[in-house]
Amino acid sequence: MPFAAELALAQGAAAAAGALISARTGADHVREKGRADLVTEVDEAAERLIVQHIRARFPGDAVVGEETASAAVTQGRRWIVDPVDGTTNFVHGHPFVAVSIALVDDEGPAVGVVAAPLLGETFHAVRGGGAFVNGERMTVSEVGEFGRSLLATGFPFKQGKGDLDAYMLLVADAVRSTHDVRRAGSAALDLAFTAAGRVDGFFEVGLAPWDVAAGILLVTEAGGRITGWPGDAEPPLATGRILASNGRIHPDLEALAARWVERIAE
Amino acid sequence: MPFAAELALAQGAAAAAGALISARTGADHVREKGRADLVTEVDEAAERLIVQHIRARFPGDAVVGEETASAAVTQGRRWIVDPVDGTTNFVHGHPFVAVSIALVDDEGPAVGVVAAPLLGETFHAVRGGGAFVNGERMTVSEVGEFGRSLLATGFPFKQGKGDLDAYMLLVADAVRSTHDVRRAGSAALDLAFTAAGRVDGFFEVGLAPWDVAAGILLVTEAGGRITGWPGDAEPPLATGRILASNGRIHPDLEALAARWVERIAE
Repeated sequence: MPFAAELALAQGAAAAAGALISARTGADHVREKGRADLVTEVDEAAERLIVQHIRARFPGDAVVGEETASAAVTQGRRWIVDPVDGTTNFVHGHPFVAVSIALVDDEGPAVGVVAAPLLGETFHAVRGGGAFVNGERMTVSEVGEFGRSLLATGFPFKQGKGDLDAYMLLVADAVRSTHDVRRAGSAALDLAFTAAGRVDGFFEVGLAPWDVAAGILLVTEAGGRITGWPGDAEPPLATGRILASNGRIHPDLEALAARWVERIAE
Repeated sequence: MPFAAELALAQGAAAAAGALISARTGADHVREKGRADLVTEVDEAAERLIVQHIRARFPGDAVVGEETASAAVTQGRRWIVDPVDGTTNFVHGHPFVAVSIALVDDEGPAVGVVAAPLLGETFHAVRGGGAFVNGERMTVSEVGEFGRSLLATGFPFKQGKGDLDAYMLLVADAVRSTHDVRRAGSAALDLAFTAAGRVDGFFEVGLAPWDVAAGILLVTEAGGRITGWPGDAEPPLATGRILASNGRIHPDLEALAARWVERIAE
């Protein structure tokens, strides 16, 4: 199987980082360190652990991560790593927390692992090899009617950048157009849930490559579709603007995004 | 211990209903029955199971549930039952699904059980006896600063009643005022997460008694606080309008709600 060694590496590194996250979850740790320090400590320790795994096995590969210097690498074989996706959830003890590890080459994501240690689930995919949750094959949902679909999104623009009010009116439009909308707090897990058919689509803007690199592969290998927002010249990995779906509802998701694309100024 | 028999009954009934939910989760069941029929079938079967448990052990008690006729009972000893809270999540295979069972008497909720079969967690409380998750004592969070708090909410007014746009602008205000806001799709679980300190507060309107009866007891027994919205004459169990928190951030949560109470017309 192509990329078998890389997949094994990513799974091992994600399991190690996940164990670290699980061990540091809980009020005692927050009380002891303070929230900000706890996030910094666990984020850095988990990323260090993952980078050590990668360097030991594939010393020639670049590593791109929130904490890692070589974040500017956009070509060649590179590992794109988010040690704790959903840090707000993590410090609050909310279980929607993920470790995201992807190997990307010039054809796009080749290996993707999203581990959710507090949910006891690990999602993985290899390019051309299908997508799996805890070792079982997973596929996107069969929902074809937008009005019966369940979507996920994030709430960007927290820091006062961009127009959160306009974004929330888009979310209201999405709620009215579909079965409902969920907001869990981890883009990596939202993509994994799309791949597993637990939600039918996901839209967000303002994301970093490490939020989405692994999840993009999960969705496409589970039979789904990934695009940018209407009018985007670059793909989501470059822009941080993403539409993900089971494929069937993708035209409706694009139409929803098109209604708001002019008003969502980042 | 007071209400020991009632607690055991509620835990047993919730476990039985949870097993039924777990057994019917998955794309095969949706494909076989269709979504609407699957919800109806599982909702009715789970409620029947719970009612059977109650009638066998406490034949004199009233039962109030979505599917059950005696929904008008608002006095005396009554069981308030939601067999599947988060039905949208359930049909989509999203794991935020709960069974909620409460015993309420003229002093308010006396026993509350919220089981999340797809997360492997059961939350319970008895009035005056504390609150527990999987048998371990739980308490609300210690977060005192509103800007560092994590809130949960629901998106009401899906059916065109009320002003969803105004509600979403309230959510935007909440996102800007706090660490962030989550929307998981089960009020019973949102209250359980508040009780467990995984979120610091929860606000919603338009809820039914069976959505909140058990969760209210979880929060108060975990050391938290429950109120209506500013100006409400009746308590949340009567109005379906609720503010829940760890107590510390409650004045800020009430101030947030007060800014919007005039504009959230149900």
